Amino acid sequence: MTTARRGDLFDPRCPTRQLLDRVGTKWTSMAVKVLAEQAPGEVRFADLRRRMPGVSQKMLSVTLRSLARDGLVARRVEATTPPSVYYRLTDLGLSLEEPLAALRAWAERHMPEIEERNRRAADAPSDGGPGTP
Amino acid sequence: MTTARRGDLFDPRCPTRQLLDRVGTKWTSMAVKVLAEQAPGEVRFADLRRRMPGVSQKMLSVTLRSLARDGLVARRVEATTPPSVYYRLTDLGLSLEEPLAALRAWAERHMPEIEERNRRAADAPSDGGPGTP
Repeated sequence: MTTARRGDLFDPRCPTRQLLDRVGTKWTSMAVKVLAEQAPGEVRFADLRRRMPGVSQKMLSVTLRSLARDGLVARRVEATTPPSVYYRLTDLGLSLEEPLAALRAWAERHMPEIEERNRRAADAPSDGGPGTP
Repeated sequence: MTTARRGDLFDPRCPTRQLLDRVGTKWTSMAVKVLAEQAPGEVRFADLRRRMPGVSQKMLSVTLRSLARDGLVARRVEATTPPSVYYRLTDLGLSLEEPLAALRAWAERHMPEIEERNRRAADAPSDGGPGTP
């Protein structure tokens, strides 16, 4: 990293690279959106899972653990039987929602034209164009 | 997807999910930034590689091929010996730079506090806190 106070994505030794790969995924983006909608309130694990269709229990656990380790999410366990686990965004986590929302909006807006292009490219005979190795 | 005209990240059948995972990675972010700095000009493969320290030839090829397939990057081959390959952002690719830049800025800005937190958590004895399964 160039200084002790700011990361540098273009420095191969800087952990900004790993951080970007962690926060840029679809599951992080979805979890942060659902939690941001309830902020500063909490969301139960089971509710989070229900609102992220297609996520497995394991993938959601991994995603939330990674967010908690990075200090973006706070976790609270209530000693019920079975235990109830609640998650909420920290202030740091909440600050991530704005750039993630912009990327999400870009992807949702441009997905149709990108998919249409991909479909046409896959149907077309190989012509040495951009899709060819 | 909810309509034919816009993607929906929360629909498991919608390709927005895969698109987001493709464009959210560190290598995509770096390649788009380097290309955006030269837009509308082109950048040679070797120059791109030099400006993305740590990227392997293979990883850069995979990244650029994926961007080209999605219509974010245009590729031009000049029939020299050996052939020279040039890349430039399309208008669609250029539109991705703004949200990627915001996410990059967030990661670079908050990396130091996140790493500091991770370092402390790794050094501390396990206490059933957020980092514990």
